[in-house]
Amino acid sequence: MSFMKDISLLVKNNFLSGIDVLSRRAAQITVEIQQGERTNYNKVLDLSSGDLHRGGIKPITFVRQVLAACFYPALLEDDSLPLDVKQRAKILLSECDGGSIGSYTDSSGIAKIKLCVSQYITRRDGGVPSSPDNIFIKSGSQTALMIMLKLLIRSKDSCQTGVLIPVPTYASFTLALEEQGAAIIPYHLCEEQGWTLHVEELRKALLTGRKTCNPVALYICNPGNPTGHIQSRKSIEEVIRFAAEERLFILADEVYQSCVYGDDTEFYSYKKVLSEMGSTISSTVELASFNSVSKGFMGECGLRGGYVELVNLDPAVREYAQRLFSTRSCPPVIGQIALDLMADPPKPGDPSFPTFSEEAQSIKNMICKNTGRIQEVFSELPGISCQPLKAGFFVFPCLHFPPKAIKWAKKRQMEPDMLYCLHLLEETGLHVRPGCEYGQRKDSHHIRLFVATQQDIMEDALQRLKTFHMRFMKEFS
Amino acid sequence: MSFMKDISLLVKNNFLSGIDVLSRRAAQITVEIQQGERTNYNKVLDLSSGDLHRGGIKPITFVRQVLAACFYPALLEDDSLPLDVKQRAKILLSECDGGSIGSYTDSSGIAKIKLCVSQYITRRDGGVPSSPDNIFIKSGSQTALMIMLKLLIRSKDSCQTGVLIPVPTYASFTLALEEQGAAIIPYHLCEEQGWTLHVEELRKALLTGRKTCNPVALYICNPGNPTGHIQSRKSIEEVIRFAAEERLFILADEVYQSCVYGDDTEFYSYKKVLSEMGSTISSTVELASFNSVSKGFMGECGLRGGYVELVNLDPAVREYAQRLFSTRSCPPVIGQIALDLMADPPKPGDPSFPTFSEEAQSIKNMICKNTGRIQEVFSELPGISCQPLKAGFFVFPCLHFPPKAIKWAKKRQMEPDMLYCLHLLEETGLHVRPGCEYGQRKDSHHIRLFVATQQDIMEDALQRLKTFHMRFMKEFS
Repeated sequence: MSFMKDISLLVKNNFLSGIDVLSRRAAQITVEIQQGERTNYNKVLDLSSGDLHRGGIKPITFVRQVLAACFYPALLEDDSLPLDVKQRAKILLSECDGGSIGSYTDSSGIAKIKLCVSQYITRRDGGVPSSPDNIFIKSGSQTALMIMLKLLIRSKDSCQTGVLIPVPTYASFTLALEEQGAAIIPYHLCEEQGWTLHVEELRKALLTGRKTCNPVALYICNPGNPTGHIQSRKSIEEVIRFAAEERLFILADEVYQSCVYGDDTEFYSYKKVLSEMGSTISSTVELASFNSVSKGFMGECGLRGGYVELVNLDPAVREYAQRLFSTRSCPPVIGQIALDLMADPPKPGDPSFPTFSEEAQSIKNMICKNTGRIQEVFSELPGISCQPLKAGFFVFPCLHFPPKAIKWAKKRQMEPDMLYCLHLLEETGLHVRPGCEYGQRKDSHHIRLFVATQQDIMEDALQRLKTFHMRFMKEFS
Repeated sequence: MSFMKDISLLVKNNFLSGIDVLSRRAAQITVEIQQGERTNYNKVLDLSSGDLHRGGIKPITFVRQVLAACFYPALLEDDSLPLDVKQRAKILLSECDGGSIGSYTDSSGIAKIKLCVSQYITRRDGGVPSSPDNIFIKSGSQTALMIMLKLLIRSKDSCQTGVLIPVPTYASFTLALEEQGAAIIPYHLCEEQGWTLHVEELRKALLTGRKTCNPVALYICNPGNPTGHIQSRKSIEEVIRFAAEERLFILADEVYQSCVYGDDTEFYSYKKVLSEMGSTISSTVELASFNSVSKGFMGECGLRGGYVELVNLDPAVREYAQRLFSTRSCPPVIGQIALDLMADPPKPGDPSFPTFSEEAQSIKNMICKNTGRIQEVFSELPGISCQPLKAGFFVFPCLHFPPKAIKWAKKRQMEPDMLYCLHLLEETGLHVRPGCEYGQRKDSHHIRLFVATQQDIMEDALQRLKTFHMRFMKEFS
C-alpha cells in the first residue's frame, strides 16, 4: 500500500537538521515540478503560513500607492494618484529627517506615527486613553515580543523564569522562549468548548510551574493562532483577575484583532477590559499588548511593522524597557508607515475610500465563504472534527486517526499528524502544518490550515485534502 | 563667563534617565526654535549620526524607482520609468511569493538575492568564491551581528565570554555586548599613526582579558567608525595570523567598504586576505563579515537591510547559526531588494547608468571636498588635531583642552568632551558626539563629526564649530 512508501526514511536522509522538514520538502517538490519530474499535480498549494499575499490576495491599493509615493516623490506630481494618497505621503515624508524614508528614525518609531497608533487604540477601546509614550514600534510584533521577553526573563537567577503559554500555540514562540532561557508552563485551551480558556486550567498550570521555576508572565493569544477562537469579555475579565491575584505580567498577543467573523463575535482588547475593572486592578496589572501590519486585512508581512503598547509598568521597569527598545536599531520606516495607514485608513468622503472599503470587505467575505466551505467539507469527512472559526487566519481541526495509522506512525518514530502532513504534501502537493508543532493534548492530533486565501485555491486545497483523507482513512481502517 | 551657565544642572534636572542626553536636548532645542524661543540660530545642524539622507543627500534615483515599482506594479506600465528599472522590478517581484513584496520570505532572505550578494562578493574579492548558502540577510548588519554574538556568547558558563573590541568603537555595539552578557576586552588603536591596529596591542589586551574571562572573538571595524581609518593589507594579514594562533573568531564589520577616499587607498576584505594566506590558515580561521545598505552611497538606513557572510564555520556551529537565523522573522523585503540593487547596480549601457554613476560620483566628490575643508579649518584652530579621513563617514578629531576646561568639567562631574558638545549644541545648534561615548585613551578627548553631508551644511557647521571653539579656548586659556 502506498502509505508504506517510507517517507520517514526520506525525511531522515534528506533533512538531517530537522529544521522545518515540511517546508524544505515543499520547496524540493516545487523544483521537481519545474523539472517535469512530477505529473500527479502541477503546483504545491501552500496553506502553511498566515500570509495573505502568498495566498493570492492583492495588496490594498491605498497602502501601496502611499508607499510608492513615499519612495519616489516624483509621483506626488502624478495625476493618476488620488489626492488623499498624495496628501498622506507628503505628511509622512515631512516627518522623516531630510524628507526621506531612507533616514533613521527614533528607535521606537516616528513620533507622529506613535501618536496615530495611540489614537487608533483610543478609538478602538471606546475612549480609554492611550499615550504615544507607551507605544514602541519595532519590525513586527514578534520583535517587540522578544524584547519584552528579554525584559521579563532573568537569565542569571538560580531559578528559571517561567512563562505560561497556551497549548496549542505557534511553534516559533515556543522556540524563542527556549532560546531566551525561559521555563515554559503550558496551559491547555478547552477544544470541546471552542478552545475556551478556563482559569482553573491557568491555576493548575501555575501551581505545577511554581514547583520548578519562577512564573512571572502569562502569554495570551487572542484571537487565537492556530485555534481561530476569540475570548469573550467575561473570559478576559477572569484572566485579568487571575493575573492580578498571582501578580503575573500579561503579554497579550492581539495581532488578529481586526480579523473577526460572524455577527455575534466582538473583539475586546485586554486593555479596554482592564480599564473597566476598578482602580485596584486597572491601575496595577502590568500589560503589554501587541499588534502588527502583517495580520490584518493589509497582510503586509514583508514590510515588517508592529508595535507594543505598555500599560501600568512600574516606572523603573518602564525605564529599562525604554532602554532595551532604544539600544536596537530603528524599525523599517516602510513598516512604520504601513502602521500609520492601518491605524488611520481612508474615511468616508476620501477619494480612496470606495476602493479601500471594497477591497477590505471582499477579503472578509472571501474568508467567510472559505470558512463555510471548510465546515461543509469537514462535516462530510470521517474522522475530522473542527471547532468553528471565529477570528484570525487559521482553523485547527482534530484528526481522529484509526489505531492502525497511529501504530504505523509509531513504527516510524514520527508523530501521526506529521506523517499525515508529509504524505498529504507528497501525494497531493497540499502543504499544511501538523498539530504536533503547536502542542496538543496527549493522543490528540490536528492540522492547521490557513483560510485567508483565494476561493479557487481553497476549493482546490479542499478537494486535494478530501481525496487524500478518504484514501488515508480507508487504508488504515 | 557664559560657560559657567550650568548646563550640567540642566542636564541633571531635565534628562534624569541619562539615555542620550545630547539627542534629547537637540530635540528640545528644535521645539524651542519652532516656538520662537531661540534667536541666536534658526536650526539644529545634526552631524551626530551616519545618515546620508538626513544630511540632505538625495536618494539614488535608480534605487527609488525600482522600489516604487515593486510596491505599486501599476508603475510597470508607466512610460516615465526607464526600461532597466521596470525589468529589474519584474524580476524581483517574480521572486516574491504571490508576486508581492508583502509576502514573507525565507528567514535568511530571498534565494535569488542571496545569490546576487554572493556574486558581488566574488567580484569584489577578485574571484574568491562565495556561496549563497553562507549569506544570511537580516534587517541591517547590526541585527546580523547581534545574532552572531548570541551564537558566540555562552551565558551559562561560569566564566564570561570575552570579545575584543577596538577603542574607540561606536557606543551601541558596546551596549549590545553588555546586554548579551559578554565581557568587553578593549584594545587601543594608535591614533598618532592614523588609528593603526597593532597586533602587540591585541596580544596585550588578550593576555589581560584571559585573566578574567574566556575570549572567543575579535571584533574589527574596517573601515573604522568613528575613526575614518582603513587597514592595510599587511595589517589585516597580521590580525588574521593572530586570530589563527589564538583561535579567535573574527567579526569583521565592513559596512563602509564602498566608502573609500584617496587614490592610494584600497579596501581589502578580511575574506579575500584570508583566502590568500595558505590553506592552514585560509581554511581554518572562522570569520563573519558584515555589510549593509545603510552605509554605502545609497545611504538607505531606513529600509533596514544588511547581511553577514560566514566563512570556515565548524559544521555544528554553522548548523546552530542557521537555526538562530531561521527562528527569527524574515528581514524586510524592501531592505533585501535594496541589497540586490547595491550588489548589482546599473552597468555601462543600461538606461539608468548615466544618472546612477553621476549621482554616486557626486556624493563621493562632496565627501572629499568636505574632508578637505575640515582639515583646512581644523589646521587653523588651536587645540585640535585630526587624523586624515581615509574611509567611512566620520572624522574623530582630538581636542586638547586647557587644564582650566578640564577642571571646569570635573567640578560638574562630566566628561570634558561631553560638556564641550553640550555647550556647542546649546550655543550654536551644532550636534556632534563626544569621544567619551566611543572610548578613548585616558585624558584624551575627541568629538565625532559626520562628513557625508551637503557642502553648504558642512560649511555652516564648520563656521559654528570655529566660532565656538575659539571662544571656548580663549575662555579657558
